[in-house]
Amino acid sequence: MKIPKPISKLIESFEKLPGIGPKSAQRLTFYLMRVPEYEIESFAENLTELKKRIVFCENCRIIDESTPCSICSDDMRNKSQIIVVSSPLDVFAFEKVGYKGQYQVLHGNIDPLNNLGPEELKIHLLIKRLKDLILDFPQVEVILATSTSLEGESTAMYISKMIKENVDGFEKIKISRIARGIPIGGDIEYADDITLSRALEGRSSF
Amino acid sequence: MKIPKPISKLIESFEKLPGIGPKSAQRLTFYLMRVPEYEIESFAENLTELKKRIVFCENCRIIDESTPCSICSDDMRNKSQIIVVSSPLDVFAFEKVGYKGQYQVLHGNIDPLNNLGPEELKIHLLIKRLKDLILDFPQVEVILATSTSLEGESTAMYISKMIKENVDGFEKIKISRIARGIPIGGDIEYADDITLSRALEGRSSF
Repeated sequence: MKIPKPISKLIESFEKLPGIGPKSAQRLTFYLMRVPEYEIESFAENLTELKKRIVFCENCRIIDESTPCSICSDDMRNKSQIIVVSSPLDVFAFEKVGYKGQYQVLHGNIDPLNNLGPEELKIHLLIKRLKDLILDFPQVEVILATSTSLEGESTAMYISKMIKENVDGFEKIKISRIARGIPIGGDIEYADDITLSRALEGRSSF
Repeated sequence: MKIPKPISKLIESFEKLPGIGPKSAQRLTFYLMRVPEYEIESFAENLTELKKRIVFCENCRIIDESTPCSICSDDMRNKSQIIVVSSPLDVFAFEKVGYKGQYQVLHGNIDPLNNLGPEELKIHLLIKRLKDLILDFPQVEVILATSTSLEGESTAMYISKMIKENVDGFEKIKISRIARGIPIGGDIEYADDITLSRALEGRSSF
């Protein structure tokens, strides 16, 4: 007896997800066998709804139910400040801490090994937005909040370079990078060397 | 900005799966955002197909595309030998090593804390099968291959007791338990105490 087709096909679907290996995929599939049918139906529905009802904002590439997204179309928010993030999840993190400006979501970092270049991250969208913004505002701020990994750092550097090279009047754009240092509650003795030297470099007057 | 509904609903669906926490559920959902639509469609289809095309065999509770399952309806297999297993995955494990008899799948072990009793495991189905089998065969064998955990051991003991109490002519039924001992390639120094004493108890002449 072989594993019946409907089961092996679902196992394959699970295996394609990141971080789920063959054994987990089997376990999940057999778990679902014992779940009431309506729950599986709603799972399947939620899957198909995802792509049907969610779009990328044409402006900032946030994922939302409409484009322009609810942030881009909110006139109460600061239009002259843009946080550049690698992942759409980062948006919700900044929203939680009360940030009231705009975003630009890259959906990744520059990573040539995984075929992710400036094209895929649509960095030209940011350049275009900045060109428009400096016509309307005397001062614009771009906060580079890509991840602090090697890829995130080089993506931040690349974007900063692109802005300076491609936006006429880039003097009106203040480019900053989020602080890298010891996390709150973190022990200095456990911090890695790079974090510690970054924390030292980025020290502020007290 | 809150997480859009279609996204939070899919995150919830993932969170319900065993071993997937809130962070993994988020990561999986955002991963799927970047996957081509046809792949999500096929994932959703595989989910709904699971319940529609897979049934429990009325006889042995194996999961298959038809009932009686392909094993119960295969006349070439040994009808007088039944392996009792806790999980449907165990069936595929025994199939791989060339077992040619029948099965009884419990879909769990007796576990009162999780509301799993003899009723849920449908142990009466096994009793009924055995009653029928001893009319047709001079000797019937039941191999108890429930897991070697505490729950698996007590389930095996319970089944053995139920057979002796409920099947008239149980003398014709040979009840055995799979061997518990040092796994092949295992180091004796690393074996836990219970496994080691079981291995000693179950020693065979050489």
